[in-house]
Amino acid sequence: MGDVVTMDKIVSLCKRRGFIFPSSEIYGGVGSTYDYGHYGVLLKTNVKNEWWRAMLQDRDDVVALDSAIIQNPKVWEASGHLAGFTDPLVDCRTCKQRFRADHLDQLACGLKPSKHPGEGPDCDLTEARDFNLMFETTVGPVKESGATVYLRPETAQGIFINFKNVLQFSRRKPPFGIAQIGKSFRNEITPGNFVFRTREFEQMEMEFFVPPDDAKRWFEHWLAERERWYVELGIRPDHLRLRAHDADELSHYSSGTSDVEYLFPIGWSELEGIADRGDFDLSRHAEHANEKLEYVDTATRERYVPHVIEPAAGADRATLAFLVDAYDEEQVEGETRTLLRLHPRLAPVKVAVMPLVKKDGQPEVAREVYADLRRRMQAEYDEGGSIGKRYRRQDEIGTPWGVTVDHQTLEDRTVTLRDRDSLEQVRIPIDELGDELERRLRAPWTTPKLATASS
Amino acid sequence: MGDVVTMDKIVSLCKRRGFIFPSSEIYGGVGSTYDYGHYGVLLKTNVKNEWWRAMLQDRDDVVALDSAIIQNPKVWEASGHLAGFTDPLVDCRTCKQRFRADHLDQLACGLKPSKHPGEGPDCDLTEARDFNLMFETTVGPVKESGATVYLRPETAQGIFINFKNVLQFSRRKPPFGIAQIGKSFRNEITPGNFVFRTREFEQMEMEFFVPPDDAKRWFEHWLAERERWYVELGIRPDHLRLRAHDADELSHYSSGTSDVEYLFPIGWSELEGIADRGDFDLSRHAEHANEKLEYVDTATRERYVPHVIEPAAGADRATLAFLVDAYDEEQVEGETRTLLRLHPRLAPVKVAVMPLVKKDGQPEVAREVYADLRRRMQAEYDEGGSIGKRYRRQDEIGTPWGVTVDHQTLEDRTVTLRDRDSLEQVRIPIDELGDELERRLRAPWTTPKLATASS
Repeated sequence: MGDVVTMDKIVSLCKRRGFIFPSSEIYGGVGSTYDYGHYGVLLKTNVKNEWWRAMLQDRDDVVALDSAIIQNPKVWEASGHLAGFTDPLVDCRTCKQRFRADHLDQLACGLKPSKHPGEGPDCDLTEARDFNLMFETTVGPVKESGATVYLRPETAQGIFINFKNVLQFSRRKPPFGIAQIGKSFRNEITPGNFVFRTREFEQMEMEFFVPPDDAKRWFEHWLAERERWYVELGIRPDHLRLRAHDADELSHYSSGTSDVEYLFPIGWSELEGIADRGDFDLSRHAEHANEKLEYVDTATRERYVPHVIEPAAGADRATLAFLVDAYDEEQVEGETRTLLRLHPRLAPVKVAVMPLVKKDGQPEVAREVYADLRRRMQAEYDEGGSIGKRYRRQDEIGTPWGVTVDHQTLEDRTVTLRDRDSLEQVRIPIDELGDELERRLRAPWTTPKLATASS
Repeated sequence: MGDVVTMDKIVSLCKRRGFIFPSSEIYGGVGSTYDYGHYGVLLKTNVKNEWWRAMLQDRDDVVALDSAIIQNPKVWEASGHLAGFTDPLVDCRTCKQRFRADHLDQLACGLKPSKHPGEGPDCDLTEARDFNLMFETTVGPVKESGATVYLRPETAQGIFINFKNVLQFSRRKPPFGIAQIGKSFRNEITPGNFVFRTREFEQMEMEFFVPPDDAKRWFEHWLAERERWYVELGIRPDHLRLRAHDADELSHYSSGTSDVEYLFPIGWSELEGIADRGDFDLSRHAEHANEKLEYVDTATRERYVPHVIEPAAGADRATLAFLVDAYDEEQVEGETRTLLRLHPRLAPVKVAVMPLVKKDGQPEVAREVYADLRRRMQAEYDEGGSIGKRYRRQDEIGTPWGVTVDHQTLEDRTVTLRDRDSLEQVRIPIDELGDELERRLRAPWTTPKLATASS
């Protein structure tokens, strides 16, 4: 992991530039919860937009859905979450703390914090008991008369319960998919590692309904597609791997799952899971709701319960992976340059426009250029500090291009266009700038880190 | 209200075409909760994108934020929500139901439903008691040891508690704003009127921090800006009005509020509220968190607590207003044509590509045209049914343009381009199609209903 940045550096950059920082900080925070600042919102929005693009715009067999967070509680009875979505917890009779029974090697005793995870403290532990991970609340005017409901622990079930609706609205037949982005909530006992695991998180899930005989083929298709998506957006292929779950790791609903793993600072960890859920979910909901959830081909009279292939990604975790992979430091003229080599389509800001000096009419022209560009893409204007300092500020947030207005601009209406990665500068007429940047934004892109990595 | 569509027609179209429909339907629903289907997601996403564009791209004094839904509970103590965000409720000793004491004229008794709201049933009512509208849940492994937290009832407080962070990260000075889109939750006792009022809803809120002396001017600025936004996106100006709150209507935090009201099918109702919140929120959080939340000008040594102007819109309510305003029916060749005259930028699908007939090589060319267009914008391909039927399907979801490949296309590579509103058809070379549609998407647009309205 020599070429992987530490989590501390990522956390520090995220805080310093307002990408992501602890939530409710002025009140001492609320455990493992984070807020996204300006650049963080822009970056994560770009990640989500690229996911939508891959699902809805680049193909025509997937439709969108946005289902409610608070659903009828019967959904979670049918899905198995009410009974089975639990972690085994143990109490310590000495230090009075509570730990995950399946992660005892990682626990830190409240009285004698273990410096060496794996050693384990000499706690006096109770037997393990199961605790449900769903957040519970009450709908209706008052607790006594209201109904107990749950914050959804995954977006997937909102898709399954709408399978019949979508069949009807969208005139689809399998194979087709339903895609959804939205927040889910899990009352994790051990969240952590920055935004890798949080209690409140945003999922990007797609359920792809296929004829049962085609399930294997589509599972392979989505494995390849999803890995390709990360690589096309700049993740180094040698920082990605596929790992098939062992039989004893499989969730109750799955007949086969592979994780796309990423080399996070904490080591190889799940970035996205691709599961073959078989007909588990549709069959369960059909049974519990007493509805036929199947596909009937009106021409052939064929009738079957589709199998489901599910690529399930996390928007926060993907954002973290893109940040980690893009982070770089290099020595330029004796100084350390910190930069994010983000794919231009992911970069929060596409272009920064700066006058070389804050006089001689340069700011006025630069503001004109800026006003024109920001109609086409997220742009920033900066006239504060030395030009080198301003470049560094943009490098650090991953802005791929810098446009500088200088004395020559006033004469011939050309500007310098600087590339974040190569540091190359070319002169270009102001009139061609917008088109050139849009062309670059659409062009395929490979992370410049690959060259470094293979050397 | 003769020119306003009924809510029934909107609900029916939304259900029929899968824009918006009741949530958890196979389990009998969950009161006043809705899911968005394919076209609904695309439409609402466009509404949100246009709001971001107006806030972040068309101006440079606003930054983005995405704060957590579950915050430190002290936030709601400081904001006044824990003590004061309540509805007065009364119980009926006879029918055992619970009603809002301030809306008794609208209540329907459980035993003797009143057909005439305003008459009132002969219930035996208790004294009014206050019930908090915040959803409560528990963070931590188990109820007994966990902390009571709340689902945020508004996104605004997430902004105020990050005021200091943003000042620091973004090198800003007032006037500047912080904008946020996200879900909020209110345990309303009387939600209703489709997505006009729901327990789970998405807000688009912006807090604009200004020097105290400038508050009045900025209040007027944002009133005008926000009204302009709706009109530019196609809402008829005669369906919008501004209404200043009376002194006794004002929220506890507000020193002045005006609503942008829209002529919904239920009558003139709040579409967006623009409030002058003064220094209420920053002062409260400063006090409760024991932090200085003020702006200090390092040059002039000036120091003040900024006042806040807040335009607070609802993404669901705005989406409903755009749907209502766009809905139209007209007689074409003896048949009723139902259409959504949505602004092209809001339309879920920008262009539908269709072969005139499903033979003679037309589908192949049409699929090529479609493949090219969908890289640039949300597009659909349709070859099923008569061409008239396919146009109607697109009209009904508001697709502004239809492209038809016919026999002439095979000869000269031109297609017909049909306009949803005027029904005009022009021939255009395939090679010019993409640029022409992008040009039209960027062009200013006025709803064709205005002509009808004034006639």
